[in-house]
Amino acid sequence: MRIAILGGTGAFGGGLALRWGRDTNHDLLVGSRDPERAREAVEEYQHLLAEFEADPSMLGFANGMAAERADVIVLAVSAAHVSELLAAVGSRLTEEAIVVTPVNRMERHEAKMLYTPPTQGSVTALVRENVPKENPVVGAFHTLAAKRLRDLERPLELDTLVFGDEVRAVEQIRRLAEEIEGLSGLRAGGLDQAATIESLTPLLINVGAENDREAPGLRIN
Amino acid sequence: MRIAILGGTGAFGGGLALRWGRDTNHDLLVGSRDPERAREAVEEYQHLLAEFEADPSMLGFANGMAAERADVIVLAVSAAHVSELLAAVGSRLTEEAIVVTPVNRMERHEAKMLYTPPTQGSVTALVRENVPKENPVVGAFHTLAAKRLRDLERPLELDTLVFGDEVRAVEQIRRLAEEIEGLSGLRAGGLDQAATIESLTPLLINVGAENDREAPGLRIN
Repeated sequence: MRIAILGGTGAFGGGLALRWGRDTNHDLLVGSRDPERAREAVEEYQHLLAEFEADPSMLGFANGMAAERADVIVLAVSAAHVSELLAAVGSRLTEEAIVVTPVNRMERHEAKMLYTPPTQGSVTALVRENVPKENPVVGAFHTLAAKRLRDLERPLELDTLVFGDEVRAVEQIRRLAEEIEGLSGLRAGGLDQAATIESLTPLLINVGAENDREAPGLRIN
Repeated sequence: MRIAILGGTGAFGGGLALRWGRDTNHDLLVGSRDPERAREAVEEYQHLLAEFEADPSMLGFANGMAAERADVIVLAVSAAHVSELLAAVGSRLTEEAIVVTPVNRMERHEAKMLYTPPTQGSVTALVRENVPKENPVVGAFHTLAAKRLRDLERPLELDTLVFGDEVRAVEQIRRLAEEIEGLSGLRAGGLDQAATIESLTPLLINVGAENDREAPGLRIN
């Protein structure tokens, strides 16, 4: 499968690239606004993964070029940039390509993070609005901290909630999640669950800070 | 410490009574609308706990009688009954007694549970409104399934989020939570976090149903 990680030079996108690069044989297209930075990031990831004896298929592209070549497109950007990104790449998606949003929107208020959904009710709803109807939108990976993903020595032992309105697309992303060692993908309903699931991230950050747990994640057992 | 479990004859309240009865030496006051039912439940719990060689201090009372004797009052009733219960017992609380709400409010809609907060914004806010100002209100135990609590053979290995505006009261309840074997109490901010935390319960129920996990609970790690 060809997976484009748009914003794949960032901390979170890089974490996903490293995990999929180490644990799977998928073709990874690392996207960035600047294709030169994307190529540099890929070199860095391949260097890091050589220590794990992984030799992933990984190439750097401008975001739009990555998006139009992929079966799955992960929006690994901040909420502030997601609309702009979708305006640039939305028309270039292959038919049936699945768009995956792990995007959270929150603000720091005094010592605490607050969930601040956009007017659409959730970032996922905003993404749905800006992606062609033919392309399924799936939410996943919201509760995974970038730092945790990038720490390849630390076993994940975490779950991720995967949700969307097209059952087959959800199942495909759930399986992609489970191919990451130590990660379980749990079905978590349709896009109407987005706000509840997106709001878990600021909660986790706050609980981590109050209880001295570094980069905490979620497990449902 | 004297802990009153109002609604302690129900599935969830009984689960707490069994866990604290087995794992601690606190005085447990099991409350019910009908004191006779409370006494019968206590007999049943003591019988169950004898198998674990526990001989807890546990007595059955009418809810009001239990509440006025306790340092900690747990409202182990459904959302539909919490206002009525507080109207009956609110004036009988000892000064500084801590009121603990594990109460969720949700409705089944087709195959899914939906969080349906009251007009106050959360059940916790409704409880706060109906408890004398002198008595701290603490939220805890929302994500613990009754079935899981009552299955004493199954290790919990779960966290519970404890939140409230009075730091000392939160810490006391957090410690009471941690005295239950296999349960970690995590500080999760003030009462303004109530809606986010209460909404975790229907989410857990839905995720459990969609992924065939029985009585799932939350772990943050």
